[in-house]
Amino acid sequence: MQLKIGIIGLGRIGKIHYNNITQQIPEAEVVMVADVCHDALPTHVRHTEADKLIDDPRVDAVVICSPTDTHADYVERCARMGKHVFCEKPLDLSLTRIEQTLTIVKQSRIKLMLGFNRRFDANFMKLRSLVCEGKIGTVHMVKITSRDPAPPSLAYLQSSGGLFMDMAIHDFDMARYITGKEVVQVYAAAATLTGGAVATAGDIDTTVVTLTFEDGSMAVIDNSRQAVYGYDQRLEVFGSEGMALVDNNKPDNHVYYHSGGAQSSLPLHFFMDRYTTSYLTEMQAFIKAVRDDLEIPVRGDDGLKAAMIAVAAQRSFEQNVPIMLSEVAT
Amino acid sequence: MQLKIGIIGLGRIGKIHYNNITQQIPEAEVVMVADVCHDALPTHVRHTEADKLIDDPRVDAVVICSPTDTHADYVERCARMGKHVFCEKPLDLSLTRIEQTLTIVKQSRIKLMLGFNRRFDANFMKLRSLVCEGKIGTVHMVKITSRDPAPPSLAYLQSSGGLFMDMAIHDFDMARYITGKEVVQVYAAAATLTGGAVATAGDIDTTVVTLTFEDGSMAVIDNSRQAVYGYDQRLEVFGSEGMALVDNNKPDNHVYYHSGGAQSSLPLHFFMDRYTTSYLTEMQAFIKAVRDDLEIPVRGDDGLKAAMIAVAAQRSFEQNVPIMLSEVAT
Amino acid sequence: MQLKIGIIGLGRIGKIHYNNITQQIPEAEVVMVADVCHDALPTHVRHTEADKLIDDPRVDAVVICSPTDTHADYVERCARMGKHVFCEKPLDLSLTRIEQTLTIVKQSRIKLMLGFNRRFDANFMKLRSLVCEGKIGTVHMVKITSRDPAPPSLAYLQSSGGLFMDMAIHDFDMARYITGKEVVQVYAAAATLTGGAVATAGDIDTTVVTLTFEDGSMAVIDNSRQAVYGYDQRLEVFGSEGMALVDNNKPDNHVYYHSGGAQSSLPLHFFMDRYTTSYLTEMQAFIKAVRDDLEIPVRGDDGLKAAMIAVAAQRSFEQNVPIMLSEVAT
Amino acid sequence: MQLKIGIIGLGRIGKIHYNNITQQIPEAEVVMVADVCHDALPTHVRHTEADKLIDDPRVDAVVICSPTDTHADYVERCARMGKHVFCEKPLDLSLTRIEQTLTIVKQSRIKLMLGFNRRFDANFMKLRSLVCEGKIGTVHMVKITSRDPAPPSLAYLQSSGGLFMDMAIHDFDMARYITGKEVVQVYAAAATLTGGAVATAGDIDTTVVTLTFEDGSMAVIDNSRQAVYGYDQRLEVFGSEGMALVDNNKPDNHVYYHSGGAQSSLPLHFFMDRYTTSYLTEMQAFIKAVRDDLEIPVRGDDGLKAAMIAVAAQRSFEQNVPIMLSEVAT
Repeated sequence: MQLKIGIIGLGRIGKIHYNNITQQIPEAEVVMVADVCHDALPTHVRHTEADKLIDDPRVDAVVICSPTDTHADYVERCARMGKHVFCEKPLDLSLTRIEQTLTIVKQSRIKLMLGFNRRFDANFMKLRSLVCEGKIGTVHMVKITSRDPAPPSLAYLQSSGGLFMDMAIHDFDMARYITGKEVVQVYAAAATLTGGAVATAGDIDTTVVTLTFEDGSMAVIDNSRQAVYGYDQRLEVFGSEGMALVDNNKPDNHVYYHSGGAQSSLPLHFFMDRYTTSYLTEMQAFIKAVRDDLEIPVRGDDGLKAAMIAVAAQRSFEQNVPIMLSEVAT
Repeated sequence: MQLKIGIIGLGRIGKIHYNNITQQIPEAEVVMVADVCHDALPTHVRHTEADKLIDDPRVDAVVICSPTDTHADYVERCARMGKHVFCEKPLDLSLTRIEQTLTIVKQSRIKLMLGFNRRFDANFMKLRSLVCEGKIGTVHMVKITSRDPAPPSLAYLQSSGGLFMDMAIHDFDMARYITGKEVVQVYAAAATLTGGAVATAGDIDTTVVTLTFEDGSMAVIDNSRQAVYGYDQRLEVFGSEGMALVDNNKPDNHVYYHSGGAQSSLPLHFFMDRYTTSYLTEMQAFIKAVRDDLEIPVRGDDGLKAAMIAVAAQRSFEQNVPIMLSEVAT
Repeated sequence: MQLKIGIIGLGRIGKIHYNNITQQIPEAEVVMVADVCHDALPTHVRHTEADKLIDDPRVDAVVICSPTDTHADYVERCARMGKHVFCEKPLDLSLTRIEQTLTIVKQSRIKLMLGFNRRFDANFMKLRSLVCEGKIGTVHMVKITSRDPAPPSLAYLQSSGGLFMDMAIHDFDMARYITGKEVVQVYAAAATLTGGAVATAGDIDTTVVTLTFEDGSMAVIDNSRQAVYGYDQRLEVFGSEGMALVDNNKPDNHVYYHSGGAQSSLPLHFFMDRYTTSYLTEMQAFIKAVRDDLEIPVRGDDGLKAAMIAVAAQRSFEQNVPIMLSEVAT
Repeated sequence: MQLKIGIIGLGRIGKIHYNNITQQIPEAEVVMVADVCHDALPTHVRHTEADKLIDDPRVDAVVICSPTDTHADYVERCARMGKHVFCEKPLDLSLTRIEQTLTIVKQSRIKLMLGFNRRFDANFMKLRSLVCEGKIGTVHMVKITSRDPAPPSLAYLQSSGGLFMDMAIHDFDMARYITGKEVVQVYAAAATLTGGAVATAGDIDTTVVTLTFEDGSMAVIDNSRQAVYGYDQRLEVFGSEGMALVDNNKPDNHVYYHSGGAQSSLPLHFFMDRYTTSYLTEMQAFIKAVRDDLEIPVRGDDGLKAAMIAVAAQRSFEQNVPIMLSEVAT
């Protein structure tokens, strides 16, 4: 039996999931889609409103790719209707609301998976597996670099929740994923160095965040909204037995030597090129977990923890002091 | 209008083309398949015999993935029926037969494309583009390494036509593709060093072939049937203005440093992993060329030239002298 | 005329300088050495006590490689005697004392150079030159990794001044060198994770230090006393126009592929192997600056600034708050 | 006791050996030098004529760096006088003369070492050690790339003995060194593609040489007199258990990413930069072998074998047929 899926929101990410399920995941079928912009909808699939989609008995599971401020409502409705949910991050910008939603989810018996797609990237999975196999020993330090090619639009920035909640949240999740440890303290240094839309939006574009884990080990994350050479996503994990790192993916691996120097390709410029496979792998994981009644690989609680770190980072930056994660707990 | 495609042969390669067209090329549709083994056929597509498939008026173009000894017959029938053809290499093991077939194709108005899929690999295309842009200057030397992880089965080896016609033919085509030059002389040194099935089949497993181009520049190709570390496909082009090379693709780019050394991943082990994208790209190129009446990117003549080099290499190895390509012309 | 040099202290570093001057810098000559351990002294050079060496009219310039707690005294004596000085870092563990010494140096007309040898490493010089040429644009972020293969002995640790003053001070200098900017704030997270001698000495072994520069841009430095895979020294500079990074040096660049994976060499394991050339280059720079009356490439003030950052880092770690550099000024 | 060394010829290579012995090899001392150009001679060492140097009882061992056509005479005189010899390659351009000289050497009890300095390069030594440890298994293929940045002067070319004897001879030696196998057949394809001095001298500048070893395995060597991007020296060894390769050395390992691409440094441009250490290591090996009466690491016979391959390659190129090494034996 194919899993019957409804997708809410067919913007950039929604279309990725739609195409992956339709073309590459025979175990599932998109039976219904909902988007406020009717032009975005594929013609050969039933479309309706979001609430009706959730309620429709022909839908087994819902993939939520609509704007952030709708996530919690839709997830809660899914919980009440007994529909499994895959929801893009973050669940909400408010920690209180996230917790409320997770409580409702827990009371239901649905499975909820958060869209931290980078956990399914082959490079990062390799590092996680090295940690799990004990190859790194006790982890002493994680280093994450995450830079976008260019800032998003002013409109996007203004409703994004800020760099920490919008962008660094992926890295906060990654730090927990790679180490399997919980964060106890956050210190964030940050600045607005690129000007332009970021400055207009009153946001920051460049940060260094130091996370301290429960055992005293640390993670350090540097972010930028503007890396002129492309989408830069690297990770290193260092511990008592060794160190492992992964570099960016490139469109090809050529090196060209001429009298003026040696040249090679830039990293894949766009997150949709870099994470093409991870989007497919995460959706396969979700569908398999629902169909086979397995544990969800990215739980709602993972979304809450990452959001808490983001809130702590924002507060640390504003107050210029380290913030204990316990201080931001609701 | 979608291009209506019939596929003959649904073995390993046939299935790749079937899936690519079905899932990822909306401009085409597989309307019919033929395979002697009925178990291989997808249930939701019409199936028939090869000749009937070619003759069927609902079929616009035929993709031939059946055994080599059927290629020429099917291509000729397609030519007579006015069906465009994508045919896996080689057209035939006999140069005379290849020429006969190409004559029939030329007399028809069909398009014939040969399946030298490596021309569509991102790394090799990058090198070709550097040559075309003049970044390499006059090409003085091309170096190709092409090694398989393990020899094929004895049964396969016995009907393969030998290493030069079966395996190195891809590299002979690549040497012509990268340089845009014609080969005039071939010298092949070779040996049977791995034992096992190759020795039983009376074939060779390790070679160095030196190709001399019309302008005196050279290509050197080394092949092995058995690289224990995986599928090894590298290329270098050197000329008056510079040099460029491409390395293997790997499943991830991690490096792991521990007290005993630094470790990284092996090359992708299997040609279907390495060339996943090139199979899709080549089929897109074929379908686009047919639909838009464009020039075919890998012509029948390219297949003939590569086969001539293979025949010359075999003769050079047997006689231990360089062979002029003009000597093997029919 | 050769520059007549006296060397005080012929331990590990003193011997490097002695050999470099004797064998590879014909513009200078070691005329006298002083060491409390007479066994360490070369037989074919005059030896004496440190004070007498400084006072001796046959000595033009003094190279100070004795224990840290003697540096300030010797430098001051050199200043009074009008002898140029090359002094290993740090000048002293006390900022007050460093400032006193620098005042005396300024009142004299001697040249004082500090032994931040890493500034003369080919990799780091390349990054500095890219910054100077504007290739990076405005620097937004500097990332420095600096890890030792193993902690020093307990005895060394107990008189080292702690990780920040002993080890990270090189990186603090590097952050200023690469960017050409002054640090205004320091935040240090740190822990003792390796146990052993470090724990016994009450020191830390693992840190992340965030430096904020005057323009809001940042540097982040991670240190460890114990990287089981060797001496790990990497640097990255990121800015508005690009990013550049340098990796470790290795004894050879082989890659070995076998059925179990791909292996390559570890970084050079020991600082004397890694920085062999930089020690020579820095001494050449000192001797050239003295002979040709050029500006000294690493001034006394550079030593003070790096020491101030170290003091701030220590205080930040102890108090778990960011420390303004102005707070540690004397 | 220091080994007393006389050096004949203080050109480019002679000066390297002079400086290495003087500055870095305390076990030896240069007591005498001879050069027809008196300007080249260091002022603080005794100088004389070559024959007198060889005959002088104060000289224990002679380092011969004079023009090729003097090598055999000087080596023979050394043999008669009982002086150990380090001689730059080749011993002579004539195989007959080389054999005569080696006969005389054998009749004496002197040690003779040939200057195949690349055997002492860290990268190549690493590959050799992998072969010796069995990590490669049975060697099936060796691939050597060796390209100069630019052709030498016309004058040099005219007395060089041709590309094979002058330049490729290093690679012929390397193929034997890495594999520990003897060559039985040589096939050389070659062309003159760069024009200029090479064409005027009637020499070739671009070659591919296929060597067949006694067990059927092969080496392939490609050479060029003109690689606009620098001095290109790479090696790969492939066998039943794995493959290992080494790349060029670079002045630094930076990578610079900007909006137009990623750039890194070119290979070290000049053989004296690339092989700085190998010249020192080879001389240390010679001096140690003489002083401790050890086996010489590069014997006279190694020079003969490499020269035989060069002669065979030249003949193969001229006749366009493979040449058995037995055909060129005297």
